[in-house]
Amino acid sequence: MIEEQLKQAKLACRKMQNIDKYTKMDALDAISKALLENTDYILGENAKDIANARDNGISEAMIDRLLLTRQRIEAIAKDVEKVADLKDCIGETVRKIERPNGLIIKQVRIPIGVVATIYESRPNVTVDIASICIKTNNVCVLKGGREAIHSNIALVNVINMAIRDILPTNVVTLIENTDRSVVFEVITANQYVDVVVPRGGAGLIQHVVNNATVPVIETGAGICHLYVDKEADLQMALKIAVNAKISRPSVCNAIETILVHQDIANPFLTKLRSEFAKIKIYGDEEALRYVDGQKADNQNYATEYDDYICNIKVVKNIDEAIEHIYNYSTKHSESIITENNNTAKYFMESLDSACVYHNASTRFTDGGEFGFGAEVGISTQKLHARGPIGLQEMTSTKYIIYGKGQIR
Amino acid sequence: MIEEQLKQAKLACRKMQNIDKYTKMDALDAISKALLENTDYILGENAKDIANARDNGISEAMIDRLLLTRQRIEAIAKDVEKVADLKDCIGETVRKIERPNGLIIKQVRIPIGVVATIYESRPNVTVDIASICIKTNNVCVLKGGREAIHSNIALVNVINMAIRDILPTNVVTLIENTDRSVVFEVITANQYVDVVVPRGGAGLIQHVVNNATVPVIETGAGICHLYVDKEADLQMALKIAVNAKISRPSVCNAIETILVHQDIANPFLTKLRSEFAKIKIYGDEEALRYVDGQKADNQNYATEYDDYICNIKVVKNIDEAIEHIYNYSTKHSESIITENNNTAKYFMESLDSACVYHNASTRFTDGGEFGFGAEVGISTQKLHARGPIGLQEMTSTKYIIYGKGQIR
Repeated sequence: MIEEQLKQAKLACRKMQNIDKYTKMDALDAISKALLENTDYILGENAKDIANARDNGISEAMIDRLLLTRQRIEAIAKDVEKVADLKDCIGETVRKIERPNGLIIKQVRIPIGVVATIYESRPNVTVDIASICIKTNNVCVLKGGREAIHSNIALVNVINMAIRDILPTNVVTLIENTDRSVVFEVITANQYVDVVVPRGGAGLIQHVVNNATVPVIETGAGICHLYVDKEADLQMALKIAVNAKISRPSVCNAIETILVHQDIANPFLTKLRSEFAKIKIYGDEEALRYVDGQKADNQNYATEYDDYICNIKVVKNIDEAIEHIYNYSTKHSESIITENNNTAKYFMESLDSACVYHNASTRFTDGGEFGFGAEVGISTQKLHARGPIGLQEMTSTKYIIYGKGQIR
Repeated sequence: MIEEQLKQAKLACRKMQNIDKYTKMDALDAISKALLENTDYILGENAKDIANARDNGISEAMIDRLLLTRQRIEAIAKDVEKVADLKDCIGETVRKIERPNGLIIKQVRIPIGVVATIYESRPNVTVDIASICIKTNNVCVLKGGREAIHSNIALVNVINMAIRDILPTNVVTLIENTDRSVVFEVITANQYVDVVVPRGGAGLIQHVVNNATVPVIETGAGICHLYVDKEADLQMALKIAVNAKISRPSVCNAIETILVHQDIANPFLTKLRSEFAKIKIYGDEEALRYVDGQKADNQNYATEYDDYICNIKVVKNIDEAIEHIYNYSTKHSESIITENNNTAKYFMESLDSACVYHNASTRFTDGGEFGFGAEVGISTQKLHARGPIGLQEMTSTKYIIYGKGQIR
């Protein structure tokens, strides 16, 4: 049954790859409209998921992630319009090479093929991924979580009704079977699936990475750092620390640890104290001279809290900060606050995280904030996609070579 | 023991990433010179591998792959010089984005980190991979085959002596333990290894793909096709068929199957008959009217012979040819021979293989032939690298973001 769905998805690739950009825009416009027109139906189905979640004693924070409202559906529909309006990159020539023997070699952008996404809770992911895949001529197979199954079925029904007369069939497929075992079947189906993108908690991502034989784009784990240098503008550092930790602690681009140069530990942490009053702090001995908290151990530095909790460590110099980041970072986002451009350059060149900032909040690591218009997730791996995964990252290339009878 | 080697390799990454382009060129020049100066030592060690191979009754074809000669070492040394002279892509800005909030986002090219290669027989691979990794500031871990162990130890000794005073230690590491179990240890060492590239037979590649948790760049499997259209220049088609099948059948860019349009089957195959006299042919019923051979079955079409064997099938039209290629191709290289540019365009747009040719031999799918100067292999997967893997494909990127205190 699952195999048949995957097989049909693979077959749809060949039809989908030749769909032109205007047809894709029409399809996305139709989806956006259909979401608005079918809001009541979607909300009704979402209510079933919410009721089940309450019956199962799910936390309010998780229920909020699951919840759809009229306003949220409007926002989702608007995001689909945004994707429709993005520059189309399929077919563009990435590289052109002319060889001495007269061969002309063009590297052109093509879809990847079947993109499988394994994700949890938030139903807007269903629409995000579907619209990004349509825009890039990919076919998507969606495997959402059990907790959102009614919402996901409703959303995919609306999407498929909307594109029925515009795109080939089976371009958007939802796997309705929510057993965990299905995940294994999808991530080992090399014959049908070209890439798998896991979106969710560390457990889900680890399961996919450890068991997939299909290539994986890892997303999300974010142990991000803020380093406040001795030459920092302390007012700016404070504002960025508050933004990076407190504005939305549950997301992957929020920081978990602040590293503070010893020369400014006293004035900076004294200022920070009141702003971080509601934050639970784990600090080293030096930091705890200025802020209240518990003693931090290595386990603290290695934890993605996603919560109102923060590690604070005082360092002797920038090299100790860099060393700490190498030891504990998930290579997502790190920021240095300093007025010294050479110090910033040294920090940014020494680290190899996906995003390194000078005098800005790590919260900007996001497809929207980068101007990509939409994102599939944030890649923390080094192959294929790095940082926010936008349209371009959802493509592959092929070489087209024009000859006149050349042989080797 | 293996873990300690991998750990040291990972530590070397941080030192290696800051090495400038002139130092890398010096290191490569030193390697090239050292190979020439130590030719006798290398040949002596290679002779041990050859003697062992003969004792073990290895085929002459395999022994030829293993054999080093004075001339071959000169060629290898020259290839290292070529890599030294290639354009350096590390540090280059791939993309620059200026955001309305004043953030400046630069995507810059960086090394991948630790590149592990699992490969078989040909000892020149050892030097190729090491020099490409040095040129791209990567660190390499080499796991060659048992049959070439003396040659590989000698080559890595020469390399490491040459770069001892130029590059950090542990930039080039050979794993001398040739047990198969070591492979598993390397391809699951996510903490230390950033990418693994298997080079060798289908069995090796399948083993790596199925068991690796480290990201893999698949290489090599090549079931390539030549389609001779009804509007082909038959003289050109014949010349290309001979080149693509017979010039070097053991390599992955050689063809395994020729698809012939029914309208020109008689004149084309009649011409081909004498040129392919020494080739064992599996054909469909129609093809066997013109050439001698056995009846082909699906298994034949799905086999990479790497030998003087060829499938020939007569097709009703281009769509049947495309359908056949979709069913049996490993998505390496395909070529159409036709004087009709629209037919060529249709063929090239319909297929999504790494390389699609019009009026040229598939044998050009090669890093050298593409002007990349060197290659790690030919990627047939869709993620990260496609087609010949040159320097650029051995890099990742990071985003460097310049702010003035921006928060979100």
